[in-house]
Amino acid sequence: MKKGRLEAFSDGVLAIIITIMVLELHVPHGHTLKDLFPLWPQFLGYLLSFVYVGIYWNNHHHLFYMVEKIDGSVLWANLNLLFWLSLIPFVTEWMGDECFSSWPVVLYGGILIMCGVAYYILERRLVVNAHNPALAEALGDDRKGKLSIVIYAGAIVLAFFYAPIGIGLYYVVALIWIIPDARIEKRIAHHQRKGEE
Amino acid sequence: MKKGRLEAFSDGVLAIIITIMVLELHVPHGHTLKDLFPLWPQFLGYLLSFVYVGIYWNNHHHLFYMVEKIDGSVLWANLNLLFWLSLIPFVTEWMGDECFSSWPVVLYGGILIMCGVAYYILERRLVVNAHNPALAEALGDDRKGKLSIVIYAGAIVLAFFYAPIGIGLYYVVALIWIIPDARIEKRIAHHQRKGEE
Amino acid sequence: MKKGRLEAFSDGVLAIIITIMVLELHVPHGHTLKDLFPLWPQFLGYLLSFVYVGIYWNNHHHLFYMVEKIDGSVLWANLNLLFWLSLIPFVTEWMGDECFSSWPVVLYGGILIMCGVAYYILERRLVVNAHNPALAEALGDDRKGKLSIVIYAGAIVLAFFYAPIGIGLYYVVALIWIIPDARIEKRIAHHQRKGEE
Amino acid sequence: MKKGRLEAFSDGVLAIIITIMVLELHVPHGHTLKDLFPLWPQFLGYLLSFVYVGIYWNNHHHLFYMVEKIDGSVLWANLNLLFWLSLIPFVTEWMGDECFSSWPVVLYGGILIMCGVAYYILERRLVVNAHNPALAEALGDDRKGKLSIVIYAGAIVLAFFYAPIGIGLYYVVALIWIIPDARIEKRIAHHQRKGEE
Repeated sequence: MKKGRLEAFSDGVLAIIITIMVLELHVPHGHTLKDLFPLWPQFLGYLLSFVYVGIYWNNHHHLFYMVEKIDGSVLWANLNLLFWLSLIPFVTEWMGDECFSSWPVVLYGGILIMCGVAYYILERRLVVNAHNPALAEALGDDRKGKLSIVIYAGAIVLAFFYAPIGIGLYYVVALIWIIPDARIEKRIAHHQRKGEE
Repeated sequence: MKKGRLEAFSDGVLAIIITIMVLELHVPHGHTLKDLFPLWPQFLGYLLSFVYVGIYWNNHHHLFYMVEKIDGSVLWANLNLLFWLSLIPFVTEWMGDECFSSWPVVLYGGILIMCGVAYYILERRLVVNAHNPALAEALGDDRKGKLSIVIYAGAIVLAFFYAPIGIGLYYVVALIWIIPDARIEKRIAHHQRKGEE
Repeated sequence: MKKGRLEAFSDGVLAIIITIMVLELHVPHGHTLKDLFPLWPQFLGYLLSFVYVGIYWNNHHHLFYMVEKIDGSVLWANLNLLFWLSLIPFVTEWMGDECFSSWPVVLYGGILIMCGVAYYILERRLVVNAHNPALAEALGDDRKGKLSIVIYAGAIVLAFFYAPIGIGLYYVVALIWIIPDARIEKRIAHHQRKGEE
Repeated sequence: MKKGRLEAFSDGVLAIIITIMVLELHVPHGHTLKDLFPLWPQFLGYLLSFVYVGIYWNNHHHLFYMVEKIDGSVLWANLNLLFWLSLIPFVTEWMGDECFSSWPVVLYGGILIMCGVAYYILERRLVVNAHNPALAEALGDDRKGKLSIVIYAGAIVLAFFYAPIGIGLYYVVALIWIIPDARIEKRIAHHQRKGEE
């Protein structure tokens, strides 16, 4: 099967996840700047989740760029990833409401770990099913992915002592990912030059 | 007419249905793990509906893969399917709120039956209108579809005695469908080989 | 400019309009069939609006099928149509809540008239801007469109006496449109035969 | 990388932003025309934001029309723009609720400025990264963009004295933009003629 509709459906789901979170930013009842201030934890959570969904869209885009054909198992591995990502608006709202409590921050980290694992499973299915050694080489040992999961786990442990440290570490992982994934970009450039020759 | 926009519109509607259900998972008021526990019926319902919409997207994807041209009656058969699927967030929320009551579970099953019937009508229109004997052969006698409707009906009857049995049977049907539809995949592979020769 | 992104954006907006209306079907507080019954006006309104948005998507699909190039004025004529369609969830909810009152039914009809007018403006812009006489011929004198506006106006007047008559007439217009637009389908078939020769 | 998925994702996000705002138009509790009247500030805000998101979609469409290849930095510049646009439903709701208060109107203007700046950054990245002198020439010195930011700033200052003046000025900027961007349209026409020769 071709990848077109999988990309279109994933784009749709990610676009909705990233956008409906704004419905959870509840407008203050007053009309002064002072009434707006108490919203800062919600806003910080909104920004964090927006960046994470953006990162996943970005990586999804890079990943499928190197793939041509997919099969049924890839469809389900992709739906599994979308499922965990779809829970981000829920944990964002809880963390925004209770940002100095441990459990909401821990749950947020747990969902990030599940998203990371689901993304890893999707990568593996694409490499194995598509017999795509160029992709396997491009992904390499996925150090960034493994490092992220380690930091998430550390953030969860530390969140039990002081919740904002956990949130800070989630921001650290996001920053690591905003730096474009040089490995795949380089590989794509290489791939294209070969195609043009 | 070409199928491109029908696929794009269906992808959009299915992406929204699968994603807005998370808005119905209401964040708990407290901040402990204990406050989260009472949400498990809602979460189980969310998971079930996510899987069902995923299955329909998957099958829709497979189905239109073998079709090239469509006509007006296909547009309406497709809208009919989307209508019944669009009611899934509503019945999911009711069943999540009242998971040990019979009627919400029965209504959920009724909507699943209507979705199954609507999907069957869409299949028939595609076979007849497109004069597509390859599709007719690939679909065969659609044993999975018929079996699903029988199990839904059984689930509805049993839900009057003990509602969770109904939910359990809906999960059973979902599991039957997650196994990729080998018939069509085989046929597509065959189709492509013929195209390449 | 090409029409691809205008179609994709319109598909997205229409998919969201048709789907978010289900968020306005509020789940009953009880768990019996009796608790569900008072929802029937909302459900009837939901069905009506679903069919109308489906009709507009359908007609939009047919209309742009015969167009290749668009310009800036078409983008704005299309946004104007989407604006009036985007108000349908609002009037649907009001009419569902107050289905035996005149004003909600009148407002619903007013929005349908504005959608009809906006669609007519879009048609004219496409005919004039694209120098598309084949489209002009296919659209003809648009008897269906004119008849619809006359019935809407009648429905609005009658709704002041007894609101459900208005709703009934909106259903009548919907039925007129569900019958596929034979003129354009014939023309498309003709167009394609010519292209193949 | 090709621009296809960036366009599809942006279309999805913009379609959702423009459509979910209608969920914030709360249906009145009564059933008379008089009950509807107090909604006019919300409606005016809805219309303004609909037009602004439409303008951004329009300009985005024109902008990427002249671009073929993108890189990672364009993806992030685009996500930055979508982030600021995603806050429009939030500020629209606040301004609709409190339309005669200064701060909501000021915040609305602040978000419009951030959107303008984010759009400018995206333009620059496209010109620089894509080595696209034709685009640079077409964009010229972007007088409209700069004028808009000046008017927004003026509107913010005046909103501290009388809030509706600010809203009026936001409408003025919207009107400036509805006039199609002749420079780019001319350039596209020129570009296409050259391609056809």
